[in-house]
Amino acid sequence: MNTKMISFILGHVLRIEAALMCFPILVALVYQEQCGLWFVAVAAVCLITGYLLLRCKPESNVFYLKEGCIATALSWVFMSFFGCMPFYLSGQIPKFTDAFFETVSGFTTTGSSILPNVEALARCMLFWRSFTHWIGGMGVLVFLLAILPMTGGSNMNLMRAESPGMVVGKLVPRVRYTARILYYIYMVLTVIEFIFLLAGRMPMFDAICITFGTAGTGGFGVLNSGCADYTAYQQWVITIFMLIFAVNFNAYFLIIFGKAKKAFSMEEVRVYWGIVVVAIVFVFAYTYIPGMKMEPALRAASFQVASLISSTGYATVDFNLWTAPAKMMLILVMFIGACGGSTGGGLKVSRIITALKAIKKELGLYIYPKRVQNIKMDDKSVGSETVHATYVYFLTFTLIFGCSLFVVSLNGYDFETNFSAVLTTLNNMGPGFNAVGPTMNFSHMSVLTKYVLIFDMLAGRLELYPMLLLCMPSIWKEYLKSVKQ
Amino acid sequence: MNTKMISFILGHVLRIEAALMCFPILVALVYQEQCGLWFVAVAAVCLITGYLLLRCKPESNVFYLKEGCIATALSWVFMSFFGCMPFYLSGQIPKFTDAFFETVSGFTTTGSSILPNVEALARCMLFWRSFTHWIGGMGVLVFLLAILPMTGGSNMNLMRAESPGMVVGKLVPRVRYTARILYYIYMVLTVIEFIFLLAGRMPMFDAICITFGTAGTGGFGVLNSGCADYTAYQQWVITIFMLIFAVNFNAYFLIIFGKAKKAFSMEEVRVYWGIVVVAIVFVFAYTYIPGMKMEPALRAASFQVASLISSTGYATVDFNLWTAPAKMMLILVMFIGACGGSTGGGLKVSRIITALKAIKKELGLYIYPKRVQNIKMDDKSVGSETVHATYVYFLTFTLIFGCSLFVVSLNGYDFETNFSAVLTTLNNMGPGFNAVGPTMNFSHMSVLTKYVLIFDMLAGRLELYPMLLLCMPSIWKEYLKSVKQ
Repeated sequence: MNTKMISFILGHVLRIEAALMCFPILVALVYQEQCGLWFVAVAAVCLITGYLLLRCKPESNVFYLKEGCIATALSWVFMSFFGCMPFYLSGQIPKFTDAFFETVSGFTTTGSSILPNVEALARCMLFWRSFTHWIGGMGVLVFLLAILPMTGGSNMNLMRAESPGMVVGKLVPRVRYTARILYYIYMVLTVIEFIFLLAGRMPMFDAICITFGTAGTGGFGVLNSGCADYTAYQQWVITIFMLIFAVNFNAYFLIIFGKAKKAFSMEEVRVYWGIVVVAIVFVFAYTYIPGMKMEPALRAASFQVASLISSTGYATVDFNLWTAPAKMMLILVMFIGACGGSTGGGLKVSRIITALKAIKKELGLYIYPKRVQNIKMDDKSVGSETVHATYVYFLTFTLIFGCSLFVVSLNGYDFETNFSAVLTTLNNMGPGFNAVGPTMNFSHMSVLTKYVLIFDMLAGRLELYPMLLLCMPSIWKEYLKSVKQ
Repeated sequence: MNTKMISFILGHVLRIEAALMCFPILVALVYQEQCGLWFVAVAAVCLITGYLLLRCKPESNVFYLKEGCIATALSWVFMSFFGCMPFYLSGQIPKFTDAFFETVSGFTTTGSSILPNVEALARCMLFWRSFTHWIGGMGVLVFLLAILPMTGGSNMNLMRAESPGMVVGKLVPRVRYTARILYYIYMVLTVIEFIFLLAGRMPMFDAICITFGTAGTGGFGVLNSGCADYTAYQQWVITIFMLIFAVNFNAYFLIIFGKAKKAFSMEEVRVYWGIVVVAIVFVFAYTYIPGMKMEPALRAASFQVASLISSTGYATVDFNLWTAPAKMMLILVMFIGACGGSTGGGLKVSRIITALKAIKKELGLYIYPKRVQNIKMDDKSVGSETVHATYVYFLTFTLIFGCSLFVVSLNGYDFETNFSAVLTTLNNMGPGFNAVGPTMNFSHMSVLTKYVLIFDMLAGRLELYPMLLLCMPSIWKEYLKSVKQ
């Protein structure tokens, strides 16, 4: 195993994290908060550790999928470990497990929180908390690929391990430019949302944090009331941008390069918007009480559906109090999730489409055993490897879901709490139902449960396999063997 | 499509059903119940319909898997339709949907009931209700194959469509003898349990019905208290036989033919017993209150675990009141279910083993991409077709589960009720939790929900595909085209 290359990547990731910590330091300076000094200390440690890891240059940059997965998984664990230190050392989040949980929840764009009182946090801490969403949304390694001149085609394996979705398409032949284009689109959309929110007279600090939370489809807010106290205009802006960030970024790429027609005919994107509309109408129908004003009810339905299908997790109402059918629709869109190639989580629309087509094909084989049938998406036939990967993904997802649910249930909470806690972390949503509903938080859960959910958040963000590989003893045996050589 | 052959099979199935109705008629004679006359009437209608269907002889007995599936699915729907008529016409179950639900629940060995007061039913009705479990346990078509001299290898397609489990092994080269051996084992085990229960002084009528319920892993009882009022000895006998009937019948076949060693080394059977022991210890640990007597607590844990892993569904205590971890373990064994090739439901142990091995193999491919890895079971390598079928099964199961859950949730019940109602019917268990818990019943659900659950029971019993095929318009187009020719 190319362990030196893994160290090399980890070193770069830590250096980037140190650089990113300059932003909360700036915020601390603006608001004159002393606890901002912890960011300086942690950034220094990141720099030193990064320097040490970068000292031994890799002899070869051959890099298989296995190493890509390990490097990615370790990067995310390291990033979260160092990222949680300012919370923990400053005493703003007194327990280490809680601080780690909060940071993993940030980087993985989950948005599940252990904070009962968000407003008690210092501004620089709140900023860092939301900023982790933005960093995690597009991915640190994608950023690394965008700025670092890495040679060899093997850097694709890094991108494949970190990007959400079934198939990572190279938009342009070179991975480096693909990564750059993705980051450009991401930044431009972020800035546009920020301007729209400012235009709606949202306070500057709120606008920055909420924009980060929306762009990364994370869900951390800065008020204890979530998004309930924002104006109707502001809520509509957030709704629309949550939906926009959950669209496959390839569509935006196509639009930029003048292929708007092709972008609008993308099957995944069309199905995604179809689901959004159906879900909003359904939820509206089951939550609207005759005599109420239409607009607030429609806004609440739209906001919650957009928040959960995009896996953001903001809330304007306590949807835990909604009727069972409306809640069931929310659970359904939580499972489906965003488009592949977006910043959102969930099973992904393209995977659902492929799964349905695969089952239809299997049934077709009963009827016409000899007819050759290909699964098609956007008029291209989907390779049997992709279909196989979809099957494996569903099965692995189910098994991780089942095992996590079992361990979480040892806490003794009701079934709906346990089920939604696992669902919300594994799909990187944020809030669940009942004891982990939108007005509640995860602080009351046991330490064991928190670590299971931390694993689920990371597994969900990195499409399951990198984290599973990290748990395999044979990987570590090989790793140690390579280090000794 | 060979529609004449399908009619031919349906005709035979109805004739067999008419013959089987002689037993409840006998019971009605013994207890001098007038409503027994309805069985005579319905049996006559079955005979006439069967005769009409058998009039046109099939020209060819070539029979593909497609026709096997359709014939099986239709047989089960027809059987249930005629089987529910005595309940409905006699007024003992006044609504048709309820009578149909109860009968499908009987034949599919589910055991979910819509009866609030079981003891109000006439004896002949109670007998028929339990007898449907016994008939459905091994399957009507397997019985047909055992008695009917069908030529051609295509009768295997019938057996494959009806038998539970992943791979239907021919125990002996000829399907007819395989079917006969299965029925012999089934009958002998049934008689042994009956004798054991009688020896424990259970009333004759109860012993017959409970034996039918255990043998078919169904779960209909004759008392409102379920199995709570039976003696400790009787409960232990039922526990042991529930476990015995959930073992792969191939193991008994091997024992009979002197290959006991091979039987005990069957991987599926060993894993099954392992799960049983672990689950009992776990549930015992989470339900035992210090100071209680050991035996009743252990008995309650064993009985409930045996009942749910075998998909029988009897209960001696209201396990809905148990702690969350104990309930979660019960949900887990409900998902796992019995061994393939037994009368039990659920996902089947062999399928779980194959799934875990398949995921392990996929992870192995990340580490050693070039190493050839075969999935092995009982030292034989599992074909890639079987692995693929496992993947497809899991995905299909998940999708049917999700769709059913969604429709059921329109009822407005809590999530645990909806989830367990779908789980218990799709896995042919019987009781669920909360509003469909062991002391409750399904009568309060809406008509739409009941039909969804009826579909789930049939789909679960017939391993999903036959019922899905029955819903495909293209099958019906082909059917109508063949009929016209």
